Amino acid sequence: MKLSDVVATLEQIAPPELAEDFDIGRIGLTLDLENDIQKIAVSLDPTRYVLKRAADIGADLLITHHTLIFHPLNLINKPLAEILRIALDNNISLYSMHTNLDKAKGGINDALARRIGLSNIVDTAVGKIGTVSSCPAETFVNHVAKSLDTHVQFTGRKEEISKVMVFGGSGFRNEYLAVAKQYDVDAYVSAELKHDIIRSWEDMLLVDATHYATENPGMQDLCTVLEEKLRLDVEFIDHNPFIEVL
Amino acid sequence: MKLSDVVATLEQIAPPELAEDFDIGRIGLTLDLENDIQKIAVSLDPTRYVLKRAADIGADLLITHHTLIFHPLNLINKPLAEILRIALDNNISLYSMHTNLDKAKGGINDALARRIGLSNIVDTAVGKIGTVSSCPAETFVNHVAKSLDTHVQFTGRKEEISKVMVFGGSGFRNEYLAVAKQYDVDAYVSAELKHDIIRSWEDMLLVDATHYATENPGMQDLCTVLEEKLRLDVEFIDHNPFIEVL
Amino acid sequence: MKLSDVVATLEQIAPPELAEDFDIGRIGLTLDLENDIQKIAVSLDPTRYVLKRAADIGADLLITHHTLIFHPLNLINKPLAEILRIALDNNISLYSMHTNLDKAKGGINDALARRIGLSNIVDTAVGKIGTVSSCPAETFVNHVAKSLDTHVQFTGRKEEISKVMVFGGSGFRNEYLAVAKQYDVDAYVSAELKHDIIRSWEDMLLVDATHYATENPGMQDLCTVLEEKLRLDVEFIDHNPFIEVL
Amino acid sequence: MKLSDVVATLEQIAPPELAEDFDIGRIGLTLDLENDIQKIAVSLDPTRYVLKRAADIGADLLITHHTLIFHPLNLINKPLAEILRIALDNNISLYSMHTNLDKAKGGINDALARRIGLSNIVDTAVGKIGTVSSCPAETFVNHVAKSLDTHVQFTGRKEEISKVMVFGGSGFRNEYLAVAKQYDVDAYVSAELKHDIIRSWEDMLLVDATHYATENPGMQDLCTVLEEKLRLDVEFIDHNPFIEVL
Amino acid sequence: MKLSDVVATLEQIAPPELAEDFDIGRIGLTLDLENDIQKIAVSLDPTRYVLKRAADIGADLLITHHTLIFHPLNLINKPLAEILRIALDNNISLYSMHTNLDKAKGGINDALARRIGLSNIVDTAVGKIGTVSSCPAETFVNHVAKSLDTHVQFTGRKEEISKVMVFGGSGFRNEYLAVAKQYDVDAYVSAELKHDIIRSWEDMLLVDATHYATENPGMQDLCTVLEEKLRLDVEFIDHNPFIEVL
Amino acid sequence: MKLSDVVATLEQIAPPELAEDFDIGRIGLTLDLENDIQKIAVSLDPTRYVLKRAADIGADLLITHHTLIFHPLNLINKPLAEILRIALDNNISLYSMHTNLDKAKGGINDALARRIGLSNIVDTAVGKIGTVSSCPAETFVNHVAKSLDTHVQFTGRKEEISKVMVFGGSGFRNEYLAVAKQYDVDAYVSAELKHDIIRSWEDMLLVDATHYATENPGMQDLCTVLEEKLRLDVEFIDHNPFIEVL
Repeated sequence: MKLSDVVATLEQIAPPELAEDFDIGRIGLTLDLENDIQKIAVSLDPTRYVLKRAADIGADLLITHHTLIFHPLNLINKPLAEILRIALDNNISLYSMHTNLDKAKGGINDALARRIGLSNIVDTAVGKIGTVSSCPAETFVNHVAKSLDTHVQFTGRKEEISKVMVFGGSGFRNEYLAVAKQYDVDAYVSAELKHDIIRSWEDMLLVDATHYATENPGMQDLCTVLEEKLRLDVEFIDHNPFIEVL
Repeated sequence: MKLSDVVATLEQIAPPELAEDFDIGRIGLTLDLENDIQKIAVSLDPTRYVLKRAADIGADLLITHHTLIFHPLNLINKPLAEILRIALDNNISLYSMHTNLDKAKGGINDALARRIGLSNIVDTAVGKIGTVSSCPAETFVNHVAKSLDTHVQFTGRKEEISKVMVFGGSGFRNEYLAVAKQYDVDAYVSAELKHDIIRSWEDMLLVDATHYATENPGMQDLCTVLEEKLRLDVEFIDHNPFIEVL
Repeated sequence: MKLSDVVATLEQIAPPELAEDFDIGRIGLTLDLENDIQKIAVSLDPTRYVLKRAADIGADLLITHHTLIFHPLNLINKPLAEILRIALDNNISLYSMHTNLDKAKGGINDALARRIGLSNIVDTAVGKIGTVSSCPAETFVNHVAKSLDTHVQFTGRKEEISKVMVFGGSGFRNEYLAVAKQYDVDAYVSAELKHDIIRSWEDMLLVDATHYATENPGMQDLCTVLEEKLRLDVEFIDHNPFIEVL
Repeated sequence: MKLSDVVATLEQIAPPELAEDFDIGRIGLTLDLENDIQKIAVSLDPTRYVLKRAADIGADLLITHHTLIFHPLNLINKPLAEILRIALDNNISLYSMHTNLDKAKGGINDALARRIGLSNIVDTAVGKIGTVSSCPAETFVNHVAKSLDTHVQFTGRKEEISKVMVFGGSGFRNEYLAVAKQYDVDAYVSAELKHDIIRSWEDMLLVDATHYATENPGMQDLCTVLEEKLRLDVEFIDHNPFIEVL
Repeated sequence: MKLSDVVATLEQIAPPELAEDFDIGRIGLTLDLENDIQKIAVSLDPTRYVLKRAADIGADLLITHHTLIFHPLNLINKPLAEILRIALDNNISLYSMHTNLDKAKGGINDALARRIGLSNIVDTAVGKIGTVSSCPAETFVNHVAKSLDTHVQFTGRKEEISKVMVFGGSGFRNEYLAVAKQYDVDAYVSAELKHDIIRSWEDMLLVDATHYATENPGMQDLCTVLEEKLRLDVEFIDHNPFIEVL
Repeated sequence: MKLSDVVATLEQIAPPELAEDFDIGRIGLTLDLENDIQKIAVSLDPTRYVLKRAADIGADLLITHHTLIFHPLNLINKPLAEILRIALDNNISLYSMHTNLDKAKGGINDALARRIGLSNIVDTAVGKIGTVSSCPAETFVNHVAKSLDTHVQFTGRKEEISKVMVFGGSGFRNEYLAVAKQYDVDAYVSAELKHDIIRSWEDMLLVDATHYATENPGMQDLCTVLEEKLRLDVEFIDHNPFIEVL
């Protein structure tokens, strides 16, 4: 299948126009090697490990959530050269879907909401909101940890949880939490919780379920969608950073 | 004792010139109510709880690490009005020491290094570096958790830890970790670890010991110094956000 | 009456969208204390004197033209703390209408035009234009001084006055006077006349009738409108700066 | 005398380095016609009247406080073309001294201080401070009006005046008045008083003695200095804007 | 004929709205001397030579492509004063048409396309595209040099030329050449070819036919149009910079 | 020889601190592949042709004047991928010396001055100035063309040439020519002459000797210096863009 046809399908799944302004240059083909696509690899980050694995399984295209070169650069250092070398030697093109996939129907946030088992899912400008059958905060937190197979951190005063908002990745931002507040949400599930956020939103249950575990489901689900739409071999590569807690 | 004399001592302990450029307006007296100072309260954040407690113990001045109004504003919303009301009703002036206290001799980073028990502490442009007797990574992590009385998260491939860099608060930034790398540090202790940092610094032990637990020792130590220098009653107010982990 | 209902009426009188871009943060509720509104005070500026007087008459809401905190800040100095203390102790919310009231139907400029007795008033992008029965410049100037009960300064070469433009407050700006010129205006009434304006617009009669006297009529008229619309007790507080001339 | 020699003397009197940053392009020769200088005219503004008068008296150089083209432009409209035509037809170069003359020894502010009869004049970063024999505010205001031969406006609560700060031209700015406050000044004499200044500095006597009357003495004094230093014919051209008050 | 009527016709030929944003202040009357127009001069640049020649032939208005004051200024140096003197002494108004004439129907780019003899001319966002009967690159280059009566420089690998894009003046910019590429152009004719452009666009024939020779035809053609539309005497002034090549 | 030792020598020849501010990220190692350096290639631009040639001759390091990625980017398109592939497959590191080499002793401008045979060479802030034995302009232009083995374009009124300023590459900028004027230069040799420059500097001989021919001598001379200092095999790769003139 021609790369341009694959790209057309990817743009239909997560239209680039949905991306945030700060994502200029981080969406779409970021390494364009014009090959005929037989096999696709999908992963969260284009790390050295992931590229190597993609080469081992014979992928022609690697689709990731985070782009290879986040901040524009004009120096190529050794770790980057190493990754490029693997891609070039094995003719693997790179394609990124970032904030456009966050918001897309069936994208990062949708997948996260479904993995946690939310009902009555509705769309907001920033994340997804849904409900769980009313339960104590601790029960809910345990459920999140198990559903996403991760440790979690949590804080905030809520006792009974029913309405939940989710945002995959680094979603603990004041402007997002203000939206959650407007919807009278009981719990907010995202990652990379920071001190000033904890101080400002004390009366909501804040659950930090790690960047990886909240975004990964969306990339996993993407595999199934792509296989159906493209009738190509698509393989997910898992590269967990293995954060541990004591 | 006159407020201006207290301020002179505070500026000697943490000279305002040490503060970062972005801290304009966040250092020094941020609420100036001109009272005669009999009692001082010290805490990390000027939350509603802390102000109330300061009023209860009869404090005339509250010294915090984070300022009350972080981003300049011209609207005073209800939560802020509430805090101001307590301060004004009880005549409590507010004074902040932020990045100037981070770097000051005996400041946030120094206190953190001592609390963890580092030896041979040296100053760098961004944090403090010291050594522990060589031990496995897990032993070191356990030791940090116990010393700071907090849960910790950690990641990274190091096996044997000897050289350690510490930075209180939100210190997992690429430019700080580049300094750590230059010094061949084995472990870096700070807070608010994020996914992109985990991905970029895989060959160092990164220990996230929470924002509160890494900055609080510096504020506690400040009490002792102030009591000695001012011969006034100084009381520490602890307001732990109580993050929990599952 | 609920504060939110009062605010709805105020936004109907002077829609916030009419405000200039530079007025971000200066329109609407600037101190929000959520009280049930029984009595409203109206004045030009939220000075210490005005706040005290508002407290004396038992006002729950003070509506002013100029906002309390004009430039965003993160330090609260003593004079501001004093004003805040009065507002907080007496539970007085603050609400500002600035450039949105200038332009609103029945607003600052409209009231000024009516107070001077202009006929055939028409709206321009910046001020109001109307006519007086043709008279010598000095007669017109005398009339303005008497109508607004203020001393006035004037300059410019016009001899016979018939068409007049008015702009309450600091309206001697080149871009506004260019509009006046386009309409072939004989006299321009506003405040805070400056030397470079005098030099650039010599062939129009420029009448400086002080900032206070040109804006105050609009605030006085607002009282009547509010009483009618809200059926509440509304009281005007006059705080003239008493500029004198020799 | 060569123009370059005249310029050297002018730069010695008011060094261009003293000028404020915003005066870029407004200091020094602004129309350079390279003539041999026999006669110099001095005035506050390069108006059409002043240029004509300079031509009538046969001046080769016109020195003014305000520059001809204040805001950089690339269109030359009719009034400006008219002024340029007079200068070019009569070979009159133009030279401006603005904020550099304000601050220079013997410059605008010095001349103003002497004209009002201040004693013990000292220099501050922004204006001159001196004393008068203690007298009631009204006596002082009357004295200023008479000394500068102008009407004045005044406001503020001071009763007894002894210490005075002066700043020629548009000197009612918050940052300047803060300096006055620091020096515990009773009265501040300048021009173009505005409403927000009146509101913020109520406990100082603020005297607005017009832009023209506060800057003109400095330009008049410059004539005497130039005649002495250059041994050339120097003539002052007075072009009062004739503001009147009712 | 009144100047305002001439201006109306000029705005119809090259509507000012067509100009690029960076041309603010460079379009339309740039020296406005309000004369009755009997004779018009047209030239590429308002140089001293051109102004002198315009005065000699009795022109009341000089129309040029480049404006007299390109970057806004507030100092008038000697060369500029000299040019202004000629204009003012001879009452010659100045009018500029820059990027608006580039794009106008029958403007700079259109005239260039016709002078080179392109067929099937179509408009793009940046230049004009047309065809020549297919010929070797060298034949085409020779033809351009002869048509525009200039030497040319050329580079790039194309062998057979059929589709051509032209842009008068300084048109070798990456964003313009990207458009040419999109249209699969064989040759691009413009001026001021630079090294980085040569390196980046090696597979197109790039022909540098000088700024003057590529823009001048548009100004010459403007004369004919003006004579027809205005029934006035219009004369073209040629001021070739005479670049020579060895 | 270790790459770091080669880099140390390169930094001694052209200290990075000499570079202009806009050259951030364009100086030094721009592709770092950590090899042991046996052979060095030097060229003006890292084009595909040059990289291929460098690979053919077995170079481990390619030193160029212009950097590979001029404007920071986060997308790698096909032409760039192709160049990177050659570098990575053949383990060729890239090193750039740009404005630091322009100004360095024995750098681009020095080499150009020597190639043209200037005497009494002196350094200015922007280029080199020297003298030739006085000769007619045409003789001088012929000499430049022959010395640099290129065609040249020239313009300007000078008849007799003696004092000459040179600047390799794109040096026809107003601020550089103002320096030339200050030194009373007769001729200025550089590249990429533009129309507005021609119009503004008519009384100097301006010689455009192409970007390539004015910068290339500096890169050629660098080979000799490197061979002497490093005792390594250094080879120059010539990739002339072959601009032709008719």
